[in-house]
Amino acid sequence: MASRLAVKMPLRVARRSLCLPLASRRCITTSLRTNCGIRPAKSTSLTCTALYQVFRRAYADAPTVNLSPTPSPKKRFRLLRWTFRLTYLSAIGFVGWVAYTVWVQRNPNDQIEPDPNKKTLVILGTGWGSVSLLKKLDTENYNVVVISPRNYFLFTPLLPSCTTGTIEHRSIMEPVRNILRHKRASVKFYEAEATKIDYEKRIVYAKDDSEIKGESVEAEVPFDMLVVGVGAENATFGIPGVREHSCFLKEVGDAQKIRKQIMDCVETASFKDQSPEEKKRLLHTVVVGGGPTGVEFAGELQDFYMEDLRKWIPDIKEYFQVTLVEALPNVLPMFSKQLIDYTESTFKEEHITIRTKTMVKKVTDKTIEAEVTKPDGTKELEVMPYGLLVWATGNAVRGVVKDLMQQIPAQKDARRGLNVNEYLVVNGTENIWAVGDCAVANYAPTAQVAAQEGAFLARLFNTMAKTDEIEQQLKELSAKQAVAKNGDRDAILDEIEERQRQLRRIKQIGPFKYSHQGSLAYIGAEKAVADVSWLSGNFASGGTLTYLFWKSAYLSMCFSTRNRMLVVMDWLKAKFFGRDVSRE
Amino acid sequence: MASRLAVKMPLRVARRSLCLPLASRRCITTSLRTNCGIRPAKSTSLTCTALYQVFRRAYADAPTVNLSPTPSPKKRFRLLRWTFRLTYLSAIGFVGWVAYTVWVQRNPNDQIEPDPNKKTLVILGTGWGSVSLLKKLDTENYNVVVISPRNYFLFTPLLPSCTTGTIEHRSIMEPVRNILRHKRASVKFYEAEATKIDYEKRIVYAKDDSEIKGESVEAEVPFDMLVVGVGAENATFGIPGVREHSCFLKEVGDAQKIRKQIMDCVETASFKDQSPEEKKRLLHTVVVGGGPTGVEFAGELQDFYMEDLRKWIPDIKEYFQVTLVEALPNVLPMFSKQLIDYTESTFKEEHITIRTKTMVKKVTDKTIEAEVTKPDGTKELEVMPYGLLVWATGNAVRGVVKDLMQQIPAQKDARRGLNVNEYLVVNGTENIWAVGDCAVANYAPTAQVAAQEGAFLARLFNTMAKTDEIEQQLKELSAKQAVAKNGDRDAILDEIEERQRQLRRIKQIGPFKYSHQGSLAYIGAEKAVADVSWLSGNFASGGTLTYLFWKSAYLSMCFSTRNRMLVVMDWLKAKFFGRDVSRE
Repeated sequence: MASRLAVKMPLRVARRSLCLPLASRRCITTSLRTNCGIRPAKSTSLTCTALYQVFRRAYADAPTVNLSPTPSPKKRFRLLRWTFRLTYLSAIGFVGWVAYTVWVQRNPNDQIEPDPNKKTLVILGTGWGSVSLLKKLDTENYNVVVISPRNYFLFTPLLPSCTTGTIEHRSIMEPVRNILRHKRASVKFYEAEATKIDYEKRIVYAKDDSEIKGESVEAEVPFDMLVVGVGAENATFGIPGVREHSCFLKEVGDAQKIRKQIMDCVETASFKDQSPEEKKRLLHTVVVGGGPTGVEFAGELQDFYMEDLRKWIPDIKEYFQVTLVEALPNVLPMFSKQLIDYTESTFKEEHITIRTKTMVKKVTDKTIEAEVTKPDGTKELEVMPYGLLVWATGNAVRGVVKDLMQQIPAQKDARRGLNVNEYLVVNGTENIWAVGDCAVANYAPTAQVAAQEGAFLARLFNTMAKTDEIEQQLKELSAKQAVAKNGDRDAILDEIEERQRQLRRIKQIGPFKYSHQGSLAYIGAEKAVADVSWLSGNFASGGTLTYLFWKSAYLSMCFSTRNRMLVVMDWLKAKFFGRDVSRE
Repeated sequence: MASRLAVKMPLRVARRSLCLPLASRRCITTSLRTNCGIRPAKSTSLTCTALYQVFRRAYADAPTVNLSPTPSPKKRFRLLRWTFRLTYLSAIGFVGWVAYTVWVQRNPNDQIEPDPNKKTLVILGTGWGSVSLLKKLDTENYNVVVISPRNYFLFTPLLPSCTTGTIEHRSIMEPVRNILRHKRASVKFYEAEATKIDYEKRIVYAKDDSEIKGESVEAEVPFDMLVVGVGAENATFGIPGVREHSCFLKEVGDAQKIRKQIMDCVETASFKDQSPEEKKRLLHTVVVGGGPTGVEFAGELQDFYMEDLRKWIPDIKEYFQVTLVEALPNVLPMFSKQLIDYTESTFKEEHITIRTKTMVKKVTDKTIEAEVTKPDGTKELEVMPYGLLVWATGNAVRGVVKDLMQQIPAQKDARRGLNVNEYLVVNGTENIWAVGDCAVANYAPTAQVAAQEGAFLARLFNTMAKTDEIEQQLKELSAKQAVAKNGDRDAILDEIEERQRQLRRIKQIGPFKYSHQGSLAYIGAEKAVADVSWLSGNFASGGTLTYLFWKSAYLSMCFSTRNRMLVVMDWLKAKFFGRDVSRE
């Protein structure tokens, strides 16, 4: 009994060590050796061999005595050990999963060539709607052609972070070539602007508008089915001077321009003999538009100043100022009252000025003229000197969409974009669909809506292809049945019934219904606000914890594992090294 | 004796565990408990207490018997353990050192204001020469003003890697503000172009040439001492069409432009109905200049094609071509014959064409006309169609330097830049120094020379300040001595002697002498060539190991720990995720 126990104990210890690192195993080996009475030869000239004899007396029948009311240290250690093991294993699992995902992403399979007998599906644009459609579309069913002036997908919600260098723009870009190369059947991509859609002739006219041009600059792309996902352009509401003097915040180039201009303003303000008034003007940034983009940009810019600019360029300390201008009575209109108040008070703490009920009327190279509605209802014209103006409001219909609207009689009342029905078919057509900001379907023009519309269209098109296939089979079966003998005929009729059941099941695809997941916005100083749909209710929160939620929500929405890892690295980089104050 | 041994053993084990992680310590605790006979109460209702008695017999006087000819397992383990511990400790030490360095970098101390009575030292430029001078200069001794159109230092040797996205350009930029903010006395920085240096009046005229301008656009900056480190501009040797149609490779903007144009060529070649000849033209990149910059760019571009482009855009597979054009009989003239041969054979393997003895005569928007010297000495005009032309050769004198040269009679024979003496003083002046590519001191216009010149000037200026100080003290002591009593006088005389000794020691600063460390170039396909000064001889090597040397050498030369870490991260990113094929 005693000797069995003595052998058992070290064994249990050894078993436990299986998932511990090498060092631990080594030290257990030492303890095992000590217990079992084996002692290796010493490296000194003197070698001694020790013999251990272990005697034990087990009082198995002794009464249970609880010596201490505290939990036994062994139990505590076991919990710790298990926590450690779980962490360890999940870390290994996570790294393995990431490596596998990236490997799959980097090693696309060979693609099958598209079948020229199949219908040609042309997709315009590489924004949220089009890319979400492409991601889920079964490209074997069609000859797919994508036309866009931008050969990458841009994760727009993080664009405000790119303006100050918290995130590098390349981290939120996913090349469309990578997306297309992973489809089973190959997809043609033309980097070009769609200049005209001829609805009657079923042709899209595309033009290579980039700097380098080949012999073929314009092309005609015929289509059987067309998805318009070209988005919208920036609206200036006819206010003079906006297009000439302000920066928009829609594309990667816009973010780069703003980043460069922030530093240009700072450096120009630090130039020799600049007067204090001029310094104040140059360092005054006005953001027009109190939606999430405007609010996030204002927050990011103030962060940049607080955490980096004032440290490296102390001369500008007294002059830096960010003002947010909004025509409506408050910012973030899609959020609940409580969060709007929270945002406004947080901005006050951060020294960001909010000017609501303020409508910009005119912009010159150094000033903004705005009409301010006072609390008593009277209106007053105010002139604000500015150094940098960011225009983060308004969508206008693109030329190519306007032109298409004029070709379709049913669209003559359309103003804000192509009117679509509940299946996203452009009213008055049967082979053109529209998604995202260029489609009007009674939803806000957001990335969330566009992405859901794209995914819906993918489902629809995959179903349509299956339907076509089954209908073809039914036709063949029907012909077969007509000439079949009596015995075979029953079997064929059964098959026809089965196919028809399939067809009914497939055709049951409902109309598009948008499901709102919630709204999120970063408001600076490591705080965010969130209005999230939770079960059947709503969940509103603001603060630093919400900022962590904002971060993880945006991370999970990123296009690829690669994007996710790059964004995390950028965040760590900004935290660790600070942001770059080079003007470039 | 026996019981002392029994206590000693676990203790030794415990001591060993001090540098092991928690898990190991825990298991040692278990083994200790087992050894010492303490067993904690079990969590089951049945508690048993065991008592261990350990008897030992030590055969200390037994003869030394070597039981096995193989090294004892204990000895082997000890080596392993020590290796592990050392790795462990050095990793902790390294992380600690990095964190500390970055912390110091991010948290600059308060600076003292410059003393207006001191001499004003104006430094033009933020390239290798100027920044190397700024890094070592004791700014307390002067009122330092830096003027440059670029508010960052650029680590130019890695610029070719930025053209394909192997490295992001921000990783090799260091904001000059960060450098200046760490000097003891504050330094003024004006982001402006020096338009004119008035030698007689001792004034530099600076102009803010960036997009955003304030009231003060031009400024006059007076100087007592001036360092000209404005570098050189791109030379086109008067060849028509070069400035209009080619990309240079000197600044961050150039690398960004090339990166965009590579993808533009690829996308234009993939456009609908592009003819095979046109595809071939668009995908033909010509690099003019067989120096390290041209060779490295050609290698990087071919890597980009081999590792990424042809995978994501298979359509371009048969058309991609890189040609390196050089007027001299071979590329990399600063390397030894053997390395030149190695480079040429490696390029052949990589399918990069080298055209030596080929002089570009004319460039149009789609073709290059070049005069080729044939092996028999005859010359022939050849027309090469191209999609992208990168001009990586030639330095020309900047306008501001040319103007200064005309003001100084002693510079009337200077052609390639300001002639300087062995102390880098501009000939014909006594208060103007020149460093880098705008100075002619019989050295090649390389980063290495400029950096050494800058460091020399810093030493010189620091010494000059100390000399001035001591001379001032000597003057005071001399006056004191004249009125001192006999007893005090001896002490003062001793002190004067001591000061004069110091002065002689300090004044012993020799003239500038360039010490060549070697030449390095990346040649693509993870291979590099290196010609390094080693002890008193030379060490030439090429291949994959040299590539690792190239990497570590460039890493060690980076400006800051931050740069170093960002470059490493970029390398890992490119290796892991591949390069980005977005046109942006």
